Amino acid sequence: MYIPTYQDVLDAHERIAPHIRRTPIRISDHLNDLTGARLFFKCENFQEPGAFKVRGAANAVFGLDAAQAARGVATHSSGNHASCLSYAAMRRGIPCNVVMPRTAPQAKKDTVRRYGGVITECDPSTSSREARFAQVQAATGGDFVHPYNDPRVIAGQGTCAREFIEQVDGLDCVVAPIGGGGMISGTCLTLAALAPEVRVIAAEPEQADDAWRSFNAGYIIADDAPRTIADGLLVPLKELTWHFVRNHVTAIYTASDAEIIEAMKLAWKHLRIVIEPSSAVPLAIILKNPAVFAGQRVGVIVTGGNVDLDRLPWI
Amino acid sequence: MYIPTYQDVLDAHERIAPHIRRTPIRISDHLNDLTGARLFFKCENFQEPGAFKVRGAANAVFGLDAAQAARGVATHSSGNHASCLSYAAMRRGIPCNVVMPRTAPQAKKDTVRRYGGVITECDPSTSSREARFAQVQAATGGDFVHPYNDPRVIAGQGTCAREFIEQVDGLDCVVAPIGGGGMISGTCLTLAALAPEVRVIAAEPEQADDAWRSFNAGYIIADDAPRTIADGLLVPLKELTWHFVRNHVTAIYTASDAEIIEAMKLAWKHLRIVIEPSSAVPLAIILKNPAVFAGQRVGVIVTGGNVDLDRLPWI
Repeated sequence: MYIPTYQDVLDAHERIAPHIRRTPIRISDHLNDLTGARLFFKCENFQEPGAFKVRGAANAVFGLDAAQAARGVATHSSGNHASCLSYAAMRRGIPCNVVMPRTAPQAKKDTVRRYGGVITECDPSTSSREARFAQVQAATGGDFVHPYNDPRVIAGQGTCAREFIEQVDGLDCVVAPIGGGGMISGTCLTLAALAPEVRVIAAEPEQADDAWRSFNAGYIIADDAPRTIADGLLVPLKELTWHFVRNHVTAIYTASDAEIIEAMKLAWKHLRIVIEPSSAVPLAIILKNPAVFAGQRVGVIVTGGNVDLDRLPWI
Repeated sequence: MYIPTYQDVLDAHERIAPHIRRTPIRISDHLNDLTGARLFFKCENFQEPGAFKVRGAANAVFGLDAAQAARGVATHSSGNHASCLSYAAMRRGIPCNVVMPRTAPQAKKDTVRRYGGVITECDPSTSSREARFAQVQAATGGDFVHPYNDPRVIAGQGTCAREFIEQVDGLDCVVAPIGGGGMISGTCLTLAALAPEVRVIAAEPEQADDAWRSFNAGYIIADDAPRTIADGLLVPLKELTWHFVRNHVTAIYTASDAEIIEAMKLAWKHLRIVIEPSSAVPLAIILKNPAVFAGQRVGVIVTGGNVDLDRLPWI
């Protein structure tokens, strides 16, 4: 297992710079009053494909040598990683194969196809997904880019925290959602090198709290099929992300689906940005634990903004 | 009638700088592909009270001498001007009285009160509003800050175009919604001084197209009670804004309510920002008139983002 270093983050940043946006910071005096903290929201939902995952995906895609690039990339994902990998592959002009459950939302499939990704459908089970993926990879020779348990991906995600530290002085902590742990791991990697005094806090849905339980138990606990409105955070930690969570994360807090939905609506109303439920978990845990954050300068990573506008969770 | 000059815009910008945000520019490759243009969206919805009107309101409020400031400001408005004037008055610590129809949405009244504005309700008719407003002004001595037909307000709105020109090189045109014409007038004022080669294009709802008809007729036409989803654009031109529209605006285009709603949803989806219906009219007319905008660098002023999230027009 290769553990990426901060030099990998620097290399990634140079490699992906033409393909990502240096996303802006949003603040709201009203949310500051409400929480008693100074909140800085880094808008990764403003990446062209709508999620931070374009950073890691682009780092993997643009780091391939010519021979491998000709065979393209492959992954399994029903979410933002699939569209971000397709987007990065499209920009390099190489093939991207994605295995998605046939039950994935049509909008997500449409986005992958808009970016030229080729979808192979599987049944919505781990066994079907793995069997299908093995077939696709054997047939295409595509390089497997895991959604998070890949040093190239983690190094790419780490570029976000580097920009954050450049954009906002004196942060006391950075809060990001945790699912598989890719963004949290990249954040730990960068802050350990650049600003080790900044705490890294993970925010997780109560209904998919495997990282919180892993953190407390001291070993990886994976749930079979958690259900939460925060559908980007269903996957478990893997060895590489567990390394960063165990060694660098200060604390993990959880929020209920009702609290996540309320925070999501507050963000839409007062930041006037479109964020997905997974991205509202940090604000939810900040509102829920005022004593932890009051008086502090808090960086919040807004991970994505891909939502079905016809089906909002509060309507 | 005092017609503000570009020096007034410069003075306004210095005066209001501590009270407004220098709003960022959003771009979407997808919307560019869709329109064949290069679109740059200036996010005035990111002002703290959610609309560009804080610029003009703050210029009026912070330009008052001490004696007048002690008596405060007053206005009639059921929309963003009421909350932006209350916000500016709160920041200066002076009274703000607002006459609003009793039928105004509760959310708008709540926002005015959150910023310390005192609401006097009137019946939803011009005669009731004017009678009430005369009473309030007589009782308080508050300085009347008209929502748009006021040189201080127009000079304040002109600061937006100044930032825009600094932020984006080589714009071919700037498109903004037109209601009473305050933002369009400020934009004309600034661009005439700074970049006279940049065309100013106004976007208006088909169902409240009095500015378009005025522009074609050569004199002000005011409608009695137009109805459109773009509820920020119901008011007619007045002499001061008509001066700028008649002399500086290149063209006015209109869009139907259905086209406005579709453009609003597209902006939410691909820019991932929350914008109100009035702010979607520019994108609607750009989508509707591809031949006018194709191949051009187009600045779009996103005027506001105050929407009732429980009642979205496409649901």
